[in-house]
Amino acid sequence: MVGGGRDAFIGAVHRIAARLDDRFELVSGCFSSTAEKSRASGADLGVDADRVYADFAEMAGGEAARDDGVEAVALVTPNHLHLPAAREFLARGIHVLCDKPMTATLEEARTLAGLAAASDALFVLTYTYAGYPMVRQAREMVAAGDLGALQLVQAEYAQDWLTEPVERDGAKQAAWRVDPERSGAGGCISDIGTHAFNLLCAVTGETPSALSADLHTFVPGRRLDDNAHVMLRFDSGMRGMLWASQVAAGCENGLRLRVFGAKGGLDWFQEDPNILWHMPHDAPRRRLTRAGAGTGAAARRLSRVPPGHPEGYLEAFANLYSEAAVAIEAHRAGQPVPAEVNFAGTADGVSGLVFVDACVRSSRRNGDWVTLDV
Amino acid sequence: MVGGGRDAFIGAVHRIAARLDDRFELVSGCFSSTAEKSRASGADLGVDADRVYADFAEMAGGEAARDDGVEAVALVTPNHLHLPAAREFLARGIHVLCDKPMTATLEEARTLAGLAAASDALFVLTYTYAGYPMVRQAREMVAAGDLGALQLVQAEYAQDWLTEPVERDGAKQAAWRVDPERSGAGGCISDIGTHAFNLLCAVTGETPSALSADLHTFVPGRRLDDNAHVMLRFDSGMRGMLWASQVAAGCENGLRLRVFGAKGGLDWFQEDPNILWHMPHDAPRRRLTRAGAGTGAAARRLSRVPPGHPEGYLEAFANLYSEAAVAIEAHRAGQPVPAEVNFAGTADGVSGLVFVDACVRSSRRNGDWVTLDV
Amino acid sequence: MVGGGRDAFIGAVHRIAARLDDRFELVSGCFSSTAEKSRASGADLGVDADRVYADFAEMAGGEAARDDGVEAVALVTPNHLHLPAAREFLARGIHVLCDKPMTATLEEARTLAGLAAASDALFVLTYTYAGYPMVRQAREMVAAGDLGALQLVQAEYAQDWLTEPVERDGAKQAAWRVDPERSGAGGCISDIGTHAFNLLCAVTGETPSALSADLHTFVPGRRLDDNAHVMLRFDSGMRGMLWASQVAAGCENGLRLRVFGAKGGLDWFQEDPNILWHMPHDAPRRRLTRAGAGTGAAARRLSRVPPGHPEGYLEAFANLYSEAAVAIEAHRAGQPVPAEVNFAGTADGVSGLVFVDACVRSSRRNGDWVTLDV
Amino acid sequence: MVGGGRDAFIGAVHRIAARLDDRFELVSGCFSSTAEKSRASGADLGVDADRVYADFAEMAGGEAARDDGVEAVALVTPNHLHLPAAREFLARGIHVLCDKPMTATLEEARTLAGLAAASDALFVLTYTYAGYPMVRQAREMVAAGDLGALQLVQAEYAQDWLTEPVERDGAKQAAWRVDPERSGAGGCISDIGTHAFNLLCAVTGETPSALSADLHTFVPGRRLDDNAHVMLRFDSGMRGMLWASQVAAGCENGLRLRVFGAKGGLDWFQEDPNILWHMPHDAPRRRLTRAGAGTGAAARRLSRVPPGHPEGYLEAFANLYSEAAVAIEAHRAGQPVPAEVNFAGTADGVSGLVFVDACVRSSRRNGDWVTLDV
Repeated sequence: MVGGGRDAFIGAVHRIAARLDDRFELVSGCFSSTAEKSRASGADLGVDADRVYADFAEMAGGEAARDDGVEAVALVTPNHLHLPAAREFLARGIHVLCDKPMTATLEEARTLAGLAAASDALFVLTYTYAGYPMVRQAREMVAAGDLGALQLVQAEYAQDWLTEPVERDGAKQAAWRVDPERSGAGGCISDIGTHAFNLLCAVTGETPSALSADLHTFVPGRRLDDNAHVMLRFDSGMRGMLWASQVAAGCENGLRLRVFGAKGGLDWFQEDPNILWHMPHDAPRRRLTRAGAGTGAAARRLSRVPPGHPEGYLEAFANLYSEAAVAIEAHRAGQPVPAEVNFAGTADGVSGLVFVDACVRSSRRNGDWVTLDV
Repeated sequence: MVGGGRDAFIGAVHRIAARLDDRFELVSGCFSSTAEKSRASGADLGVDADRVYADFAEMAGGEAARDDGVEAVALVTPNHLHLPAAREFLARGIHVLCDKPMTATLEEARTLAGLAAASDALFVLTYTYAGYPMVRQAREMVAAGDLGALQLVQAEYAQDWLTEPVERDGAKQAAWRVDPERSGAGGCISDIGTHAFNLLCAVTGETPSALSADLHTFVPGRRLDDNAHVMLRFDSGMRGMLWASQVAAGCENGLRLRVFGAKGGLDWFQEDPNILWHMPHDAPRRRLTRAGAGTGAAARRLSRVPPGHPEGYLEAFANLYSEAAVAIEAHRAGQPVPAEVNFAGTADGVSGLVFVDACVRSSRRNGDWVTLDV
Repeated sequence: MVGGGRDAFIGAVHRIAARLDDRFELVSGCFSSTAEKSRASGADLGVDADRVYADFAEMAGGEAARDDGVEAVALVTPNHLHLPAAREFLARGIHVLCDKPMTATLEEARTLAGLAAASDALFVLTYTYAGYPMVRQAREMVAAGDLGALQLVQAEYAQDWLTEPVERDGAKQAAWRVDPERSGAGGCISDIGTHAFNLLCAVTGETPSALSADLHTFVPGRRLDDNAHVMLRFDSGMRGMLWASQVAAGCENGLRLRVFGAKGGLDWFQEDPNILWHMPHDAPRRRLTRAGAGTGAAARRLSRVPPGHPEGYLEAFANLYSEAAVAIEAHRAGQPVPAEVNFAGTADGVSGLVFVDACVRSSRRNGDWVTLDV
Repeated sequence: MVGGGRDAFIGAVHRIAARLDDRFELVSGCFSSTAEKSRASGADLGVDADRVYADFAEMAGGEAARDDGVEAVALVTPNHLHLPAAREFLARGIHVLCDKPMTATLEEARTLAGLAAASDALFVLTYTYAGYPMVRQAREMVAAGDLGALQLVQAEYAQDWLTEPVERDGAKQAAWRVDPERSGAGGCISDIGTHAFNLLCAVTGETPSALSADLHTFVPGRRLDDNAHVMLRFDSGMRGMLWASQVAAGCENGLRLRVFGAKGGLDWFQEDPNILWHMPHDAPRRRLTRAGAGTGAAARRLSRVPPGHPEGYLEAFANLYSEAAVAIEAHRAGQPVPAEVNFAGTADGVSGLVFVDACVRSSRRNGDWVTLDV
């Protein structure tokens, strides 16, 4: 693991996710920006001191030189370090699981995609929400034509944790997210807008061809957007809206996706993730439950316990790790990744940065419609 | 009543609304486009035959000539008849309660506003949803500063009844709404978008200064928009989104308003109208119930039964009539309308048409931001 | 109307309910226990002074003597006056709409049933909740066998308005309800337990044959029960539970009914009355909406506006009045009441008192199972 | 681990729960009733073959003899094996984590309690639902007096998986649960009624002193109850109801607890476990979210991710394991278990069997009130 030391948030999530299905073991890491902090975190986590490194290049080299060196690494640093860190591991054939967004800038994303393509190692991007079983169910239903031709997609991701200027009060999680040097040109649109974007693409199977965006910063002095309003158009004729906010008071982690086609709609809300509403046209709404009656193979494959026993965010994250484990095992055996396995890769990562870039460009041009150059 | 004969929808709603609080009596009407149908409807409704008229001009004249002529008239026709009908009654000092939107075009709206200003009679626009007690509660809380400075408003109104081309199958309610001659230049944006617009203005106390719209027609051959995506800006710095759709499969009458300020948010959904969610920043959500603990004078004033005993759409509509009754009684007594009484008038009506006009203009210019010329 | 003067609650509800569908007109009344108060209330309500009476016997006589005397009367007094008042009107062939429970005691109920049987006039008991369209939908589905053989019924009615001894603080509505002289031997079990009982009988089409009850008074000094726990057995083999409480802090008007059969279940909650959940065994839950897709004739017949436009408590009450109007018109025409019309009568009224009596007897015998002597 | 081989359900849950917080490692087991199956399961789970045993006595002996023998064992067998298995491990000072209910019979429970008291080892009973953070929040609020004096407790646990006689179709999970030899005298009341019972005792801090039960078997030929209706009385004056069913069509894992005191109520539902509703008397309902604003130390201590990121059943289970880990570490260090740690032990286990025994006795005596002989 690179990153994820004391004070970090997502690193601990990755570790639980990796452990949950017992397919990964944490044996090495470079957990912080200083060697001392990294050692302290490594000790906390029970990692042998000789496999705790001061920086990621050293780690990549050290592990590659060992017979029992790591087979895969998780990158859980701020965005701007994803490219340089991934470069080191990919160059040595070590598989990379990387937190989203893929990089801080679109240029970096394209570079990283090239490095991954040139490497024999796998690159897995951990877009958490695509790991939820009922998101897979939604995707499966759309693909099966249950909604008919898609017409509308309404995505939103509302949080409130940046309602006040917490970055000035020492909130480490906030500080790097509102800093263009570490986050890139997008604030909220990059941090959570990309999640909503990835989710809508994953479920609909389509990527917008054009968008019009109105990014805004409500908290005085903040350098990146903390709210984003976006209108979307797709080549298929589908249209959509995306709202991402980190200043929506009273909203915790309100990621919601609605998709409507000529024959019906779907509604999924991350805070109640075991439920997927199916709204067939001219029939009563159906409340699908995770692995419950009426669900298909995609959702059941990623469920651990029966319906009525809630699974949540950590289980969704663990699903990404388990998908990666299956892919890695197939890779090790020289076999193709099984067809039912699904995870985000560099194409999805580039797509996310293309989206952020388009939002920033459109917003700077006062909401002109711009094309997404994928 | 003008309009509201057999096959009509909203006329029956107006009649129940007028009756519910026992402050109006139906004694005269011109219920349909032909004299014969009008007579038949009048008979159904128990109106004396000599007070059933063949057209609205005849009715205005006939009633004005009677000692016991109507004091007020309800206009429940398609949009393009609102102006000519209102003209006749206002000219004779008969109060007008008019269904929304005020007219088919902005020009007509301005003309009607002028006529109403020149008349001694009252003009009341029945924007239904502003009659809900918990909408009044929301308005009261915003005005009291409970949310702090407003930042965001997210409005949506999703229906599905035009998902298929029902206007070609003889659906009378659909036919005129998708006909530019009778509806004006806006379809969905005019029919229900104006409801969402009025609601957001009523609650926030602000009107957008600019918008960017993407109107779209999904059903082939339909002549007006059946889906509208709009981004909003306000002089105060508030920003917003508005989505109106009549092709959102599985949505019945999904009008929802969320407002966020620096100190908290509110969430109201028309299909569960007795509840208003208050989301104070950094405190648990509070579930306010109509006339329940924690609600104020505005909501209690318009409630008939205790909390837990649901009131609905007809009661909200009846509140508009009862507000009008109070205003009419004050007018009759030569007194000002009491301060707590609140109903939409010509300014709100013009504002609605300004909104529709701006949406149409922006959409025709590919979503350019246009100002609302109020 | 008998009762329903100033300070009363349910009288106003009856008046709105009677007016909503325009099939009744209030022309006479005896609104309070004193002539003076009755006159004042009559004046408030716009009733001619010569048709406002000092007591119900005088009213029955006076109206019967007029050519334009009332055709029907609504009794909205405390329970102990239902029998003597109904007696006067039934004896004169005036139809009676009576608030629930039918009487204060089982003996009175049986007497009243005899009087009604001997009269040509109709007797209608206004068990409000049976007037909700989705309760009719539930009843229709059970009768059609959609749930298979019924096994379980779980009814609850939780309120909180008697959590504190408000009867001592001058709350008129509370005072008579906790007074055995005016309410009878049951407190909460009579006031709202009978509603839950009527609802479960109406939906399942079955009446319990035996019960075991634990009635309790939580507020010190209160003379009647304010909480009731009851277990139920039915001859069919069905079993059930009923909980009624007026001391459940935070509950407004929480009447809920769940019914389970071998093939599925139903769930209805009065505070969200436009929704009926259908839970077919081994299939996703179906969210049925009032008059929406998948609902049948019984619910549609009693709906006024499209799905998504909430109807509520007053509309449910109005449905009872409109059912009565149809029955009265049929009676007037010498025809049978149409088969689809449904309202509670004396049998249901007696059944409610049998239930209260059984609960009181069982509870006094420490919860022994007692039979319901219907 | 004892039990939890192929085809088992709860064994896998225990393993994930043990792993999630990285405080346990699975190194030994006796996973099935035959040596061969046990070996196969051990191989699946990556346990060294020399630490996979044919029976639990052999395992206890074998592990106790090793320097690196297990420190704790999880018992996840059918109920009747809990006592004999626990006996072996407790006798050797190996800590026991035992699935609920503690044993098949009350007599066994008392025996096991005695053995545990005589052993130096810890005995932890995994009543899953007490591990949910918001259950801890509820408990904390009750203890702090936030609800005032408790008056009512309404518990229910509704499932549908035994609606049909699945035990005859080879459903292994069903077969032992409806078999008195392996389950004891209670069916549904033992399998899930004890969960509801433990939950209500844990939250209220009170144990019923008397109950009246109506156990029933709906599926013909089934030997144990599949539905239980119970009324409860407490020495404090509190009263309650408990409903447990495995034939409630359409219910997945519907464990719900409501508690009402003179100053307010609480409502928690297992299928939406991150939410706890607080219903203060005469104030709006408060929606408390796991680790969110307004929650206390008890809930935050057991949370891993921020509010809005759902945790579920596996996390609740993991909390039990982590509590046990803390206790075991304290034990190892010769220190007392920290005050904030909370898990069920033999007293709770005996209490559960006392409850089942009382329900069976009461039901056999036609619902007579019987005392709980704790």
